[in-house]
Amino acid sequence: MSTTRDAFLGGRVQITQPRVGYRAATDPVYLAAACPALPGQSVLDLGCGVGTAALCLHARVPGLRMVGVERQPDYAALARLNAAEAGADMTVIEADLTDLPADLRQLCFDHVVTNPPYFAANDGTASRDTGREAANRAETSLGDWIATARARLAPRGWLTLIQTAERLPDCLSALQTGFGAITVLPIQSRSGRAANRVVIRARKSARAPFRLLPPFLVHEGPSHAADAPDFTPQAEAVLRHAAPLALG
Amino acid sequence: MSTTRDAFLGGRVQITQPRVGYRAATDPVYLAAACPALPGQSVLDLGCGVGTAALCLHARVPGLRMVGVERQPDYAALARLNAAEAGADMTVIEADLTDLPADLRQLCFDHVVTNPPYFAANDGTASRDTGREAANRAETSLGDWIATARARLAPRGWLTLIQTAERLPDCLSALQTGFGAITVLPIQSRSGRAANRVVIRARKSARAPFRLLPPFLVHEGPSHAADAPDFTPQAEAVLRHAAPLALG
Repeated sequence: MSTTRDAFLGGRVQITQPRVGYRAATDPVYLAAACPALPGQSVLDLGCGVGTAALCLHARVPGLRMVGVERQPDYAALARLNAAEAGADMTVIEADLTDLPADLRQLCFDHVVTNPPYFAANDGTASRDTGREAANRAETSLGDWIATARARLAPRGWLTLIQTAERLPDCLSALQTGFGAITVLPIQSRSGRAANRVVIRARKSARAPFRLLPPFLVHEGPSHAADAPDFTPQAEAVLRHAAPLALG
Repeated sequence: MSTTRDAFLGGRVQITQPRVGYRAATDPVYLAAACPALPGQSVLDLGCGVGTAALCLHARVPGLRMVGVERQPDYAALARLNAAEAGADMTVIEADLTDLPADLRQLCFDHVVTNPPYFAANDGTASRDTGREAANRAETSLGDWIATARARLAPRGWLTLIQTAERLPDCLSALQTGFGAITVLPIQSRSGRAANRVVIRARKSARAPFRLLPPFLVHEGPSHAADAPDFTPQAEAVLRHAAPLALG
């Protein structure tokens, strides 16, 4: 398999990933930035891919004990490699999240982070590459994904997820059971546009009301004017300088 | 009953309403501004109160045939009075929306607009005034409210509703059945704050994906600086000049 080595968080994180197929971009970086983990806590990354979200989180918060679950063997192997090179305390388990190994089912975590697939299995469009397809396309429903997160969270543990904005209703439906303090941060590429991603944070068994935050604006101006990057200062801070995403 | 006479839309709409109790403010104005009704179409306002939303819509779109349903007799009587003074083609039916009269159950409408109560019946806080309490507090669930809207909509008809942002998850759950093209416009009082209202538009039997729009900002600046009104130009346009709310 041909791989590339890519820098995240201004070079704080180096990730080896397949040249072709699902490739980490900004979504796992936002996911990591939104997780309210504290030093020494435990984190489960469901569908960890090559480990980008977990290792971005590791770069910001020291001393985390992390477990990644990834169904695709090639991605799980790269996640192990990336975690070892980063010196992260991260165990990568190759498994389907609907059929977790028994020893993992006996653990619970302070945090679950997850970037579930963005397309339902039967929505018509198809990607040529199988790795990309498997990463982008759900054979497991968003409901199963969130139920697995809930089952593995400690009481009052936090779930942080990122998803295409189109599926916000599905996410909120799945979170109706067992979660509260649900906070949505829309990620909006430019002013005046609909959100393209939503970062959602929810707390197991909490009661606090739902909140819809102002959007996080990624690019300056209503359209791309020049070849130069045009990140907003807040996007620069999160993507290049490992700033946390404030969800209150 | 002591009443006041209040101007909406820069004086285009005059509303007589109880001095004490539920009083229309900006929410029915936003609701009316977001309804994509065209001249000559039919509109059902579920829980019409004293008729503010319907009559604001009438001021912007000529020739609408409107029906309002209101459970509280005093409010229904005022809605009739207000509609007659506005010269609107509006029939006001005093009924509970879960028990609509048979002749209304045989009609269907191009549009339903609704501003359902903001608090669940059992959420603990209480208002002293019964009219206000009945208007603010749901004895009917949001699910029943939206199911009634769906039942009375023509094929491909539009539902427009406004609700407290806290209940966006409940709204989206209720809209999962029978609606598509769901668009959410957050109403945000000031920059940097969480949304306090959501305007939601959905189309019966449509398939288009969910969209989360950038927030509609009501006031300039991060906090209230002076005694003077500080509406944004877009809020001025909608609240004072009867501009529509663009939901794409």
